[in-house]
Parts: sequence; structure tokens; C-alpha cells
Amino acid sequence: MKVRLIIMLKQGVLDPQGKAINHALHNLSFQEVQGVRVGRVIDLEVQETSPDQAKARAAEMAKQLLANGVIEDFEIEVMA
Amino acid sequence: MKVRLIIMLKQGVLDPQGKAINHALHNLSFQEVQGVRVGRVIDLEVQETSPDQAKARAAEMAKQLLANGVIEDFEIEVMA
Repeated sequence: MKVRLIIMLKQGVLDPQGKAINHALHNLSFQEVQGVRVGRVIDLEVQETSPDQAKARAAEMAKQLLANGVIEDFEIEVMA
Repeated sequence: MKVRLIIMLKQGVLDPQGKAINHALHNLSFQEVQGVRVGRVIDLEVQETSPDQAKARAAEMAKQLLANGVIEDFEIEVMA
């Protein structure tokens, strides 16, 4: 089963990398871009049959290792 | 309109960061993890009304700036 973890900075936390990308896109004439936030995606291949169980375990992994709860939020999608 | 770009290494491209995470998860007793791939997510806030148009423009941004076509693939999701 494949589980996707998406880790983004919490709202309100400054994202200089996103700001830089925003700026670069404007320079390339993508004027419609109004804001950019950058995050990480971690795709996990897990030996698990229950989607709920896979989700719960992935949340545990995020809390223990993969995300920094102080400044980051995460979402979990079970993909297949 | 919010557009999410997910950029992952192409299949076959070695992902040492993913390997390191895999190893670390095993050390934390997440034995069910069989593979990890790491990528980037870029959330764009764009001034655009048509989802198709937003998608096409985001693909253009990915090709020109955000993804490295040699080693990376990208997916685009229109979120709202």
C-alpha cells in the first residue's frame, strides 16, 4: 500500500524559499502567481492491508521523525 | 485558485534521502515500511478562473523553473 505524506510549513511561518520562487516566477512573466508555499512530500510503500491502519501509522511516523510539529503541519493520503 | 505541484525523482533515479528515512523508520520499529521516496510540493496561489488554464500554466512553470526534467517528474492538482 502506498501512503503519501505532505508536510508544509504552518500558516504564519515565514517561507523564504516560497518567496524566492514567487519572485523568480514573476521575472519569468508568470504574473498571475500571488503566493507560493513550499513543502516536502514523502511517499511510503508499506506492508499494510487496512487503509485506516496505514494512515494511523503514517501519522505516528510523521510525529516521531518526519515532520517538525513546532513549525510544520502534515496531511496523509492513502494512494492504493 | 490554488494549484499543487508535486515533484518527485523519476523512477530509477537513486534517492539517498529516501533510503536514509527508510533506515531511520526501521530503527524506530516501523518495520512495515518497504520503500521511501522523497519529493517537493509547491503550492501556488494563482489569479486564474479556468482550472485547465491554471493547470497548463503550472506545467509551464514546472518545465521552465521548478522541476528538473532530466531527473524529475511532476504532477499537478488543481485544489480549489
